[in-house]
Formats: sequence, C-alpha cells, structure tokens
Amino acid sequence: MRMGILGTGDVGRTLGTKLVELGHEVRLGSRTAANEKGQAWAREAGARASSGTFADAAAFGEVVLNCTLGVASLDALRAAGEANLAGKVLVDVANALDASKGGPPILAIGNTDSLAEAIQRAFPGARVVKALNTMWCGVMVNPRMLPDSHHTYLSGNDAEAKKVVKGLLRSFGWREEEILDLGDLSTARGTESILPLWLRIYGVSGSGAFNFKVVSAKAG
Amino acid sequence: MRMGILGTGDVGRTLGTKLVELGHEVRLGSRTAANEKGQAWAREAGARASSGTFADAAAFGEVVLNCTLGVASLDALRAAGEANLAGKVLVDVANALDASKGGPPILAIGNTDSLAEAIQRAFPGARVVKALNTMWCGVMVNPRMLPDSHHTYLSGNDAEAKKVVKGLLRSFGWREEEILDLGDLSTARGTESILPLWLRIYGVSGSGAFNFKVVSAKAG
Repeated sequence: MRMGILGTGDVGRTLGTKLVELGHEVRLGSRTAANEKGQAWAREAGARASSGTFADAAAFGEVVLNCTLGVASLDALRAAGEANLAGKVLVDVANALDASKGGPPILAIGNTDSLAEAIQRAFPGARVVKALNTMWCGVMVNPRMLPDSHHTYLSGNDAEAKKVVKGLLRSFGWREEEILDLGDLSTARGTESILPLWLRIYGVSGSGAFNFKVVSAKAG
Repeated sequence: MRMGILGTGDVGRTLGTKLVELGHEVRLGSRTAANEKGQAWAREAGARASSGTFADAAAFGEVVLNCTLGVASLDALRAAGEANLAGKVLVDVANALDASKGGPPILAIGNTDSLAEAIQRAFPGARVVKALNTMWCGVMVNPRMLPDSHHTYLSGNDAEAKKVVKGLLRSFGWREEEILDLGDLSTARGTESILPLWLRIYGVSGSGAFNFKVVSAKAG
C-alpha cells in the first residue's frame, strides 16, 4: 500500500522504516521538500522510500499517518491539504503536548476535547483513527520487545477505517486481543490523557521502553 | 492504628472494612453524624468501627484517608478542620470527576494542577500522599483478585508519609515491586489524568475489576 507520513521526527521515521520493511511504499512529508531528516531517511530506507512536502506525502498516501508534534498538527494538515486527505484513513498518532511552560509537558487540548476530534472537525472528509499515541515509537512498531502482553487502543467514527488500522497494527506484531477498540473518536480524550502519567513513569524509569497492560479479572 | 476515613461511599466503606479486618480502629466521617450509610457500616463492621462527622473522623485518625467525591473534597476537608489534619498523613484517594456535563465525567482539576496539590495548598500542615486513585476500590484492597501483577502509584512531598502509605498498601496485599513512587505531589497530575482512559475502558469492558500493569523492557 502507499503510505503518506506527516512528520520526520522519531515517530514518523520509525513508522516509515517499519512500513517500508513490511513492503509498503512510504513518503515522508515535512514543511519543506528539502528537509534534511526526510531526505536522509529516504536515502537510507531504500527504493520504496521517498520524501517531500506535507502535501506530497498526503497526496501519495492511500493511508496517511499524522506523526507531527500535536501542537503543530492542524497547521501541518492544512499544509497537507484537505483534498489530499479526503476519503482517506488518517491515523492520528500525535499528542498535543505543550513543552513551553517548563516541567513535564502539559496537554494543549484535552479533557473536554481531543486532538483527534479537533483534526476530524477541521477535516470532515478524512477518516480519522486515533492509534498508537500512548507509547514510545520503538514499542509501536515492535510490540514483542516487551516481555509480556500489553495493550493499544483504537478510537474512531469509521468502523472500516478502524479495520484498516487494526490490520496495520497486526502487521507490526500486535496480537488481536491486544488491540482494544474504545469506540468513537471522543474516546481519544481517554488515550491522549494518559500522556501525563506516561511522562511521570518515564521520569522515574528513564526509559520509554514500556507500555500499559490492562489486567482484567475476567480475561487476564 | 486509628484511621479516619472521610466519605461513606463505596471507596470509604470498602477501605474502612479492609482496615478493620487488618486490626485498625476506623471511624468513617460524613457531613452529618446521622449519615445512614456511615451508621450502617459501623454496625456491620464490628467493634473497631465507628462513624461520625468529617471532624470526628479526622480528629480520631492518626492517618486520614480522603475518600470523598473529588469535586467536594476541599469542602469536606474544611469541615474536617485544619487542626484535625495538621501533622497527619492524609491519603488522597479521590478524583475530581465532574459528572454534571453528560457523557463520561471530566476532570474538574487537571493538567496544570491536581486535586492532591490543591488539597496540600489548602492544608499545608497535612502530609498529603496521593495513592490508589487509579482503580476501582475492590482492586485497591484486594490486588490479588487480578490474575497478574499490576501497579499502583505514590505521589507526595513527604518521604516518611509515603512510607506509611506504602506500609498500608503492603498490608492490603500489594507487592513491593508493584508500588511505584513517582516523586513529589505534582506527579499526582499524572495519576489523576488516567481517569479519562479508565472510564473508557470501563465503558467497553463493563467491569471495574481491572488495573494497569506497567510492562517494561527492563524488568518485565
């Protein structure tokens, strides 16, 4: 499949590399086509990898992944272009973390709204699915690096779009029972709100190589 | 030890019953001494159990547990009385959930502040420790009901107070390695912020008998 990734940071490059390894064609997009991180990634990641602007990546992708900084995501998506997102599955991996205040980042959007919903409102033609935003990117693409089962979540208003994302997660190594569909896109308020706890656990453990497992009395 | 519990809801009564079973003397406090739930609990829980006003319970306790609704906690603590809290370990189990807006409750305090910090500011003489607020009360007092290890958190500015709370948690059946000290009281912003996700998982699973396990690449 052709994948457009918005964002050339750790998350975008890590997901891009994994998707190329899985046989997809991937275009990484950033503010300018001359972005060095995007170009270097494309050279290293092989023949199925390319880079360009946000609009290049969004136009290229049959599925588009938002891996930009959450506080800049709406701007990035506007640069990507509404027409390039229309009808497409848009996987929102971002968190609206504001690190400008000192101390651990706070959520610029939350509680009564979510970044995913803000994106969906701004781009009603996109089929937004919130996924993978609750963990470090190394775990996203290699869930089996952790020595136990653990969970990831799906939020979205489009059942078919969630199926597509679930298929991608399965191809990354996530087990069927590890993927919890929480319901409509408003449930992204829940998954985005885990970041303040994630950041504190990261603060005491010094490693992002962890994730949460929901241990239930019913199923284990 | 003498324990004062503020709040006669499920959380207060469940913790009270467990503490009585463990040999503590427990007084449950509410707005009025004639509170029926408090009186009924005291009759059923045995000779070491009693009930009274918030002030009665706080004066009685060597350790005080705030198990009131988070949005009413500051009022309840004012009724308990600053002098009755001074110098005492105050375990804040509450969450400032506002259910008045329809839909899943939202956090009335969060992101740049926490209920625990608001309580500490209002009662600087109390030794506030945030604990146990991330789960259903049935799991708080019976962690071994879940078929796997899972985690609970401590936040507080007073190391000795956290030791006292850790001892209580150990007596409930929590294992040493399941109790994660996140640091000072501001880290309660992290644990309180898990509620929006907790509520969505509860929404799809229909059971509160679950908790989060931090699965780490280092320790498992």
